[in-house]
Amino acid sequence: MNKSIQLVVVGSIGLDTIETPDARKNDILGGSVSYACAAASFFTSTGMVGVVGTDFPEPYMKVYRGFGIDLKGLQKVEGKTFRWSGIYERDMNNRRTVSTDLNVLATFMPELPKAYTEAPFLFLANISPELQLHVLSQAKAVKFVAADTMDLWINIARKPLMKVIGSVDMLTLNESEARLISDENNLVKAAKKILEWGPKFVVIKKGEHGAMMFSKAGIFVVPAYPLEVVHDPTGAGDTFAGGFMGALSEAGGVDEGAIRKAMAYGSVVASFGVEDFSLDALQKLSRGDIDSRLDLFRKLTHLG
Amino acid sequence: MNKSIQLVVVGSIGLDTIETPDARKNDILGGSVSYACAAASFFTSTGMVGVVGTDFPEPYMKVYRGFGIDLKGLQKVEGKTFRWSGIYERDMNNRRTVSTDLNVLATFMPELPKAYTEAPFLFLANISPELQLHVLSQAKAVKFVAADTMDLWINIARKPLMKVIGSVDMLTLNESEARLISDENNLVKAAKKILEWGPKFVVIKKGEHGAMMFSKAGIFVVPAYPLEVVHDPTGAGDTFAGGFMGALSEAGGVDEGAIRKAMAYGSVVASFGVEDFSLDALQKLSRGDIDSRLDLFRKLTHLG
Repeated sequence: MNKSIQLVVVGSIGLDTIETPDARKNDILGGSVSYACAAASFFTSTGMVGVVGTDFPEPYMKVYRGFGIDLKGLQKVEGKTFRWSGIYERDMNNRRTVSTDLNVLATFMPELPKAYTEAPFLFLANISPELQLHVLSQAKAVKFVAADTMDLWINIARKPLMKVIGSVDMLTLNESEARLISDENNLVKAAKKILEWGPKFVVIKKGEHGAMMFSKAGIFVVPAYPLEVVHDPTGAGDTFAGGFMGALSEAGGVDEGAIRKAMAYGSVVASFGVEDFSLDALQKLSRGDIDSRLDLFRKLTHLG
Repeated sequence: MNKSIQLVVVGSIGLDTIETPDARKNDILGGSVSYACAAASFFTSTGMVGVVGTDFPEPYMKVYRGFGIDLKGLQKVEGKTFRWSGIYERDMNNRRTVSTDLNVLATFMPELPKAYTEAPFLFLANISPELQLHVLSQAKAVKFVAADTMDLWINIARKPLMKVIGSVDMLTLNESEARLISDENNLVKAAKKILEWGPKFVVIKKGEHGAMMFSKAGIFVVPAYPLEVVHDPTGAGDTFAGGFMGALSEAGGVDEGAIRKAMAYGSVVASFGVEDFSLDALQKLSRGDIDSRLDLFRKLTHLG
């Protein structure tokens, strides 16, 4: 069976070393594109664009395949895979980066396989804005593009980042990044300023406090599903965005209603993701699990 | 006209000196009972139990009367009114207490006027747990009691505080207080532990991130209404609780549905309150303004 690719995701693939108050894990599968593609795969046919080195463990390729992710856009090149290492503090909200080794990511040049250039949905996960623009230029039939970014690019590559922001339908970023890029302390003002730069939707991710979506039509707020156990928040934002884009692709439309429901799906999938390290929790997940928690999620905010 | 008192609120009355990045205000009307009664007054006949000194400005009495608050439980005694002074940092989420002068609050002994002892709703705003218990013992016909507290009482008066918690229907506290009292870092675990101590509902207030209500029936989350301008967050938690108790009293029932709607009302009234210092924004408010924002509030979380 050869389903056409509906959603393309480009971003980083990493081998993460993570320390939390409870555990330490070495070289586990991570990176923005890993989390986003895994999350999206529950909803739509998803193609991954990324790069790994020759040291990338074969079992991790099996993990990708297990999700049914299309890997035609995955490059394997001579050298070491990107590595990231971080430590979480006791409350799991603050993390400290210990080391970042770009390795093969330093010379990554993402190319869309022909089958990906016709995909209607595109998620530019966190990589340099230049590479995001390079990918965007290859997408011929795209209907909805979302981009993520980080403080690093805001600080060192603002010009190409502004070009990305002016070219996409939705920008996702976290609270401190929204403040940094807009020079506005108030998040409503920050989002309004970013909306003026072009995107129809701005999503501010707030970790355990959920996410806020801003558009001309107003503001929409989704909580994070309250969890008793959070083992590893790494990749939660990418899981949210991947679940969102997958659900939006499944819905087909990109109207406000579809976007709201996709936000809820994103929050739900992200809530599963943080219950274990790497993609471990997502690997055990079924679509039924997601829909069951979506029902609980609805009750969470239901005003009656 | 002599409406019977439906809601009694006991707490502190203070003259606050507040510095924000934009302004400094001296000896403005504050205190938990001021905010809570003003908020509740939009919904129900509210009686105030508190103490002021002989220096308490007459115009502030007029402010209370303007809200229609019943003042039979307000004591005026020889001495100075309680004073609090604080400074807000740039992001308005962190504040630092500069000084606290208990003055007449140090010897306050709250007494319910006879007309208050039959009130069905009681809010024990933030004062010492001993005084909260003293008030509770005078309430003869109470149907629903909520109590607020603070880190100080958790640290120095845990035994009477535990008695309060075991005697009320709802406990409200902020995130750090929930962690402190439960010795649980995770908020879901913290709330579950507190529920075991007796209350049917635990509300964790998260400031600009809204509030979470925990009960045996599950979790309910209300956002804070997103604002472009926050001039003074002082009293937001008390305004929330007062609006909540007022709306619950108006609804009459104390079932899950009534509680959810009351939470939304609390969040809406609190969102008005922080738009200006002291009770200034609430003074300009009509019930129609509240209901209009409640409609917007519904859209904020409406999943479709």
